[in-house]
Amino acid sequence: MPKYQFMIDIQYKSNVRDPRGETIKRVLNEEYQIPVTLLRLGKSIRIEVEAENEDEALKMVHSACERILVNTVTETYEVRRI
Amino acid sequence: MPKYQFMIDIQYKSNVRDPRGETIKRVLNEEYQIPVTLLRLGKSIRIEVEAENEDEALKMVHSACERILVNTVTETYEVRRI
Repeated sequence: MPKYQFMIDIQYKSNVRDPRGETIKRVLNEEYQIPVTLLRLGKSIRIEVEAENEDEALKMVHSACERILVNTVTETYEVRRI
Repeated sequence: MPKYQFMIDIQYKSNVRDPRGETIKRVLNEEYQIPVTLLRLGKSIRIEVEAENEDEALKMVHSACERILVNTVTETYEVRRI
């Protein structure tokens, strides 16, 4: 059966605070003089699934996201084929 | 000064083990019957910088990656404009 690879980007929703991201932003601003105006830490997951076709593969990936990979209360996600 | 946003994908190099990713893959296979053949956990960072032009902005982002965001011994990264 063919295999399909995807990249999943998971970001916290914009109303969720990100203290680690804020700290890194401050260090880049103050210690490295890099004018970063926004920095948000997220997760990325490279995933490969076996499926009959790309549509089927994409459904599996969304199912994995909704079931265990993403906390949809606090996070949003995007899937792209690679 | 204009602002430019980028997404940074950070993945462990393929010779670095990823036990958390392996566990998630196994759970998806065995408990959810999703035929995942590969799963690697990485990080993604949304970043915005102020710069005179896009070239300058991209240089700042690479500088931030090399200096503190990425451990280039164990990780690789990709930057894309969003």
